[in-house]
Amino acid sequence: MTGLNTDSAPVTGRIVISVDAMGGDRGPAAVVAGIAESVKKNPDIHILLHGPRAELEKLIGRRQWLADRIEIRDAHGVVTMDDKPSQVVRHGKDTSMWSALESVRSGEATVCVSCGNTGALMAMSMLRLRKLPGVNRPAIAILWPSRNAHGFNVMLDVGADIRADERDLLQYALMGASYARNGLHIERPRVGLLNVGTEEHKGRAELKAADELIEQAAPEGNFDFVGFVEGGDIPGDRCDVIVTDGFTGNVALKTGEGTASLIGDLLKEAFTYSPLSRISALLSLTSMRRLQKRIDPRRVNGGVFLGLNGTVVKSHGSADATGVSAAVKLAFQLARSGFGDKLAARVASSPSLTQDAERQGSGTE
Amino acid sequence: MTGLNTDSAPVTGRIVISVDAMGGDRGPAAVVAGIAESVKKNPDIHILLHGPRAELEKLIGRRQWLADRIEIRDAHGVVTMDDKPSQVVRHGKDTSMWSALESVRSGEATVCVSCGNTGALMAMSMLRLRKLPGVNRPAIAILWPSRNAHGFNVMLDVGADIRADERDLLQYALMGASYARNGLHIERPRVGLLNVGTEEHKGRAELKAADELIEQAAPEGNFDFVGFVEGGDIPGDRCDVIVTDGFTGNVALKTGEGTASLIGDLLKEAFTYSPLSRISALLSLTSMRRLQKRIDPRRVNGGVFLGLNGTVVKSHGSADATGVSAAVKLAFQLARSGFGDKLAARVASSPSLTQDAERQGSGTE
Repeated sequence: MTGLNTDSAPVTGRIVISVDAMGGDRGPAAVVAGIAESVKKNPDIHILLHGPRAELEKLIGRRQWLADRIEIRDAHGVVTMDDKPSQVVRHGKDTSMWSALESVRSGEATVCVSCGNTGALMAMSMLRLRKLPGVNRPAIAILWPSRNAHGFNVMLDVGADIRADERDLLQYALMGASYARNGLHIERPRVGLLNVGTEEHKGRAELKAADELIEQAAPEGNFDFVGFVEGGDIPGDRCDVIVTDGFTGNVALKTGEGTASLIGDLLKEAFTYSPLSRISALLSLTSMRRLQKRIDPRRVNGGVFLGLNGTVVKSHGSADATGVSAAVKLAFQLARSGFGDKLAARVASSPSLTQDAERQGSGTE
Repeated sequence: MTGLNTDSAPVTGRIVISVDAMGGDRGPAAVVAGIAESVKKNPDIHILLHGPRAELEKLIGRRQWLADRIEIRDAHGVVTMDDKPSQVVRHGKDTSMWSALESVRSGEATVCVSCGNTGALMAMSMLRLRKLPGVNRPAIAILWPSRNAHGFNVMLDVGADIRADERDLLQYALMGASYARNGLHIERPRVGLLNVGTEEHKGRAELKAADELIEQAAPEGNFDFVGFVEGGDIPGDRCDVIVTDGFTGNVALKTGEGTASLIGDLLKEAFTYSPLSRISALLSLTSMRRLQKRIDPRRVNGGVFLGLNGTVVKSHGSADATGVSAAVKLAFQLARSGFGDKLAARVASSPSLTQDAERQGSGTE
């Protein structure tokens, strides 16, 4: 039952991460600064950095220890936040994003990291890395601060695709459980299916069908299925993995982020309201910093594209050095655990999905 | 263009609110305590209170000033949180919920307030009050703490129905705008349609169609349409009314509540971590209370059922006296503004909806 966990032994020694230097809101300087943090902390990380060579060399500067750990791959085109995915896929061969994915495709690097345009990155990843055999719709999984002992829940899909039928949702459950095992070290993840009520008579038809499929797949998939969960369980402790379609997941993600950000701003306001409140703010600085660290989105920066031949970590577009460093760290962890191979084995071993893929004639795509 | 705002003059004098005393998590004691708060503050509020007479009389006790403002309607059945809506609709004639709705149906009261089972309340409201002419799916609208100057945004539907096509979404826009005008006093509300991206090429087909319909209806509907908005805009200041289907809205609502509650608990934790942090917590108590008041869900307690012949305010099941009082206050405001008639006029005046209703042969339902 637990065989798949040991299918791929952890990878030892040097890990190569392919990083797209361009396309983030803060430009390549933040990316290089984030990489510098990562490689300083972890001697096993090596970076293939994609972007305009002259600009990147300037940013690395005279730091020999940094230059030794980064190999630059010259690429002049940049995918901007406004570029349409369909355009980029056709005309983006000279971009740093394309080049960064190419290093994973060729096997030179294990994981790709980019702060760029999500839609373009997903479209390009689909085209270049291709879907895993048996996967119909890839998904983007994120980590969400939660009441769980390990501090985070996995939620997917948060926006790779706006649709998901019951078989897609089953795949998300399998991929999410695998990610929770390898990214959060949860031996036996608890998976929940997002719905509007926990009563059986509620919800959409595809959710009822997915409920049955996931229930059946749980024993072999080495996870516990807790059934339907609600929005309140996303930051809760009823489950470790929340499965939903990309439309609902994206709205939930952005609602949660917006709510947290509103509360943070109101908190600041409350503490600058009067001289006394400003003094108390000073005194409570340590407490506030502890809280901030606990829920700092930069610490869990990185959506992961699942269901492709190769792992892609999508960092926030606005990521600063801390955010980029967190994304590189996540990429390293996944590479080290042999996540890509384990995920492929997990999806391939699911009978209901393989049959389905064969029926559709796309089993070996 | 602004004619409809004056169609119904504000109602002056005594306002009768019909209140279901039973079915909330805290029992009728919390309901009576909430009513007492409301009637003490506002001499125009009169209450029809539905539930077991002996129990309610005991709760009102010897307070003559309270007894003078409450008329008890004896009803022995109680709808519990576990009751299925389909069962309640068939066998719930003796319940306090049924009785409370009946007072609105008969015209004795203007608005109904209940803390009971949402599904049952909606099913019973549909059956007894019937849908407004031209309305296909009624909706539940809530107020959401936001960055807006008035402090709250309206979001609908948050769970009356799990489906919504483009015409339903148009109705939600009209009803939501009307509610924002009468409940929040926003003369010309800005309406946004919830989607996963603001680019036109994103999203589901019904959203693209709804985008066009709402755009066309905006001038006559006396609101501004800002187009697609994202989850982050629900607590934001880009619009005053967020329109979405009941599945997405319910997930977003519960995700936001769950996130806020998690942050609140972590904040408490941060402030009890060490002796110093406990001292700083004491000092910052005033600041924290100010924040808490600003985002206290009890202050905006009450989802409103829109699209029926009569207004129903659904209070949180866990509402305490403060929560019940807030729900009664909202019911009073809506009754005073003549909201029900204005909403009916608004929906009836929408050409695309009326045509549609006639085409479906349900225009006079």
